[in-house]
Amino acid sequence: MPETKFKKSEDFNEWYNEIVELADLCDKRYPIKGMNVWRPYGWKLMSHVDKLIRQEMDKTNHQEVMFPLLIPEKSFQKEADHIEGFGSEVFWITHAGQNELEERWLLRPTSETAMYPVFSQWIRSHADLPLKTYQIVNSFRYETKQTRAFIRVREIHFFEAHTCHVDFNDAECQIEQDKQIADRLLKKLCLPFIFNKRPEWDKFAGAFYTISIDVLMPSGRTLQLGSIHQYKDNFSKPYDITYETEEGTHAHCHQTTYGMSERLLGAVVGIHGDDTGLILPPDVSPIQVVIVPIIFKDTREKVFTVCHEVAEQLTDKGLRIHVDQRDVNPGNKFYEWELKGVPLRIEIGPRDISNNQVVLVSRDTGEKKNIARDDLINAVELNLDEMSQRLLKRAEVLLKEKTHIVDTLDEAKEYDGIIQLPWCGTDRCALEVEEILDGNTLGEPITNDESVTEKKCVTCGKPAKTWMRFAKTY
Amino acid sequence: MPETKFKKSEDFNEWYNEIVELADLCDKRYPIKGMNVWRPYGWKLMSHVDKLIRQEMDKTNHQEVMFPLLIPEKSFQKEADHIEGFGSEVFWITHAGQNELEERWLLRPTSETAMYPVFSQWIRSHADLPLKTYQIVNSFRYETKQTRAFIRVREIHFFEAHTCHVDFNDAECQIEQDKQIADRLLKKLCLPFIFNKRPEWDKFAGAFYTISIDVLMPSGRTLQLGSIHQYKDNFSKPYDITYETEEGTHAHCHQTTYGMSERLLGAVVGIHGDDTGLILPPDVSPIQVVIVPIIFKDTREKVFTVCHEVAEQLTDKGLRIHVDQRDVNPGNKFYEWELKGVPLRIEIGPRDISNNQVVLVSRDTGEKKNIARDDLINAVELNLDEMSQRLLKRAEVLLKEKTHIVDTLDEAKEYDGIIQLPWCGTDRCALEVEEILDGNTLGEPITNDESVTEKKCVTCGKPAKTWMRFAKTY
Repeated sequence: MPETKFKKSEDFNEWYNEIVELADLCDKRYPIKGMNVWRPYGWKLMSHVDKLIRQEMDKTNHQEVMFPLLIPEKSFQKEADHIEGFGSEVFWITHAGQNELEERWLLRPTSETAMYPVFSQWIRSHADLPLKTYQIVNSFRYETKQTRAFIRVREIHFFEAHTCHVDFNDAECQIEQDKQIADRLLKKLCLPFIFNKRPEWDKFAGAFYTISIDVLMPSGRTLQLGSIHQYKDNFSKPYDITYETEEGTHAHCHQTTYGMSERLLGAVVGIHGDDTGLILPPDVSPIQVVIVPIIFKDTREKVFTVCHEVAEQLTDKGLRIHVDQRDVNPGNKFYEWELKGVPLRIEIGPRDISNNQVVLVSRDTGEKKNIARDDLINAVELNLDEMSQRLLKRAEVLLKEKTHIVDTLDEAKEYDGIIQLPWCGTDRCALEVEEILDGNTLGEPITNDESVTEKKCVTCGKPAKTWMRFAKTY
Repeated sequence: MPETKFKKSEDFNEWYNEIVELADLCDKRYPIKGMNVWRPYGWKLMSHVDKLIRQEMDKTNHQEVMFPLLIPEKSFQKEADHIEGFGSEVFWITHAGQNELEERWLLRPTSETAMYPVFSQWIRSHADLPLKTYQIVNSFRYETKQTRAFIRVREIHFFEAHTCHVDFNDAECQIEQDKQIADRLLKKLCLPFIFNKRPEWDKFAGAFYTISIDVLMPSGRTLQLGSIHQYKDNFSKPYDITYETEEGTHAHCHQTTYGMSERLLGAVVGIHGDDTGLILPPDVSPIQVVIVPIIFKDTREKVFTVCHEVAEQLTDKGLRIHVDQRDVNPGNKFYEWELKGVPLRIEIGPRDISNNQVVLVSRDTGEKKNIARDDLINAVELNLDEMSQRLLKRAEVLLKEKTHIVDTLDEAKEYDGIIQLPWCGTDRCALEVEEILDGNTLGEPITNDESVTEKKCVTCGKPAKTWMRFAKTY
């Protein structure tokens, strides 16, 4: 039985690095830095997250596509800002077999430059719009910094939605929809988050503006889970994506993208877990309820039979159930399923059978309840639901506790977490704050707060235009 | 409305090349040869095939994993036969950003050399065996020959199962199971096929033996859809995959793999389609029934309402239904859904509503039936089922008609398709047949047929040891 060496409360980063392997999510021993093996349990967890994403995409009429991984250097270079943003981060294929290629190809870091030359052929008229597509793929970045499972990797399990619209306003509506998708999706992962409009100097290469989706990790650092980009016609011009309007003229499309990655899983691990291991949100846990038979002497057959009856009853309700009938003592089984974060455990022994009940244990609280067999389904559904709410609540408390709205830099220096400051709007002042706080600019809140205009920029003292958020980031 | 230029019966290859794009399966205009874009309809179709594969893998206790795409040259080179087999077909990454890498990495053509160094760490004792894993991934081969959508591409949508066993016999049992999986899966795709034990000189690089899964395309050429490999300990020795036996000694694992690709889709397109377009097997068709409203004057609302009632009734039964309510005349809709191969069409007009019936049309026969609303669900399920059977039957007839068991080379020369000949067992004789028939050796049937020993090798005239099959191949 593997033992955890690190405690989340004492050394979050080491705890995280350890738990992702102990809980069988991934194997970091693959011989290329930042490229890990997804073990079956981790991949299943990720697949459940993907399933939720696909549901959201279906609901909002996005269509799944699959573009090639390799991008010709020529396509890549069409949008100047974009190549500048990514040029130092891409992997190049130069040879095939024994031959040198005539043109170099790169592995997609993201698919704008693969898709948009094709979109320009797909889109002819306003009737083809909006075009709403997405794909879930492997993408690649040449990370030179320290890598970390699910958080900073070189082969990224990546969701990217790409949409084309008749005009800026229609693209803005898409961005509203994207925000709602983030709300619904992250709620199912029990993850509270904030939107930040990224500052000009740190937006996505080629974007008109970028909204990031950030969560707060227990270490006090924020983790960017995804982003939503308004491209305007910044890409449609170089890639020549035009359409015939109803009036018969030609216009460039306006575009948006929406990206999220396996960092969703990194946040689930880091925010919900505890010293005992993972705690998985019921909506995505590969196993929602594990059933552990408690056997004494000759009761084996009987107990197993009841365990499988209970499993069947719950499976019929669409729940993901596992009966652990290995020849291992129950204590070890408890330990292992707690490590793996299974939300609920049901214990069934001969006495429970006599009493026509089961014992139900919640992973997050450890609370044990006797549940009458007649009430089983209700109780399980209710307890899963309550657990989701507790996880979300607990993470909300953390986010709130570690978010500090302050008026001066001196106040700011006293806190870790997310610092929100009044700001005059100039790059210079924000960059100075970054240096003083030794952190990064997350961006502005996306909702207006007029009251800030009564305040003064923490750096230059001039009237503030907006709030600006800073944090140490992953 | 796009018009088909080619007829399947007149020019199969051109018909195939045209139909994959006209039916919106893929777009071949991507600027790298042999790398096509999966359009939404094509990707959905492939996803339904993947779903069937995952069901089979679940049923047989394989676990889904995800290994990195990139393989270090050092890992790749450990198994000498393997690198010899693949060396000229792989893409090499040599640079990242502006830097040259210290070691070259290749894109997986298949994952033995990525997985097995890790398997050697996962497997410690006989209790870890069998290890049964699979993944569905993009894999890459540097094809220099003419490419063809789904059939010969450079980025391959690839299924690969990898298993490790205590000994040769246990690995053989796995291969039996793999064969049953092929039986079940290909039946759902309505594809009759033959297993061929590939000849020594053409087996998979590193394998002890290889069984191919071949179908016959209407052009008379065979298409290899997949293969099952017995590796014995050919890989476990160089990759040091050992386990502690029950007796406390150490032994090398025996391994098998099972691979299939998007060629499954190529076979579905090529074998079932007709001059009008695709004909999709009901089990994988993205839309199983399309409902087309037939509207006269003021009946629009009423007809739409009934169409959606019918759709809901069928959706509730788990069927995949689409109501086509575009403002396009019904004839054009019929044409389009026939092109896309939707198995059943339901037409509903005001008169049908009065008569409490719908019109049901089968894609393959074009037959129209009036179906009473009360009998709708039964009729749809029955007609889908009958259509599957017809598609399979028709393909079986083709396979039978184009399979020729002959005793002499002179006879053989008169036929196209699959030629089965008595053979003495020497490479020389088989290679001579290849040259004379201008075809390839598919391999031996995997079931024994003692009667062949009474026959004589078609080349050397010595007593035959086995049958050998030849065909022109894709």
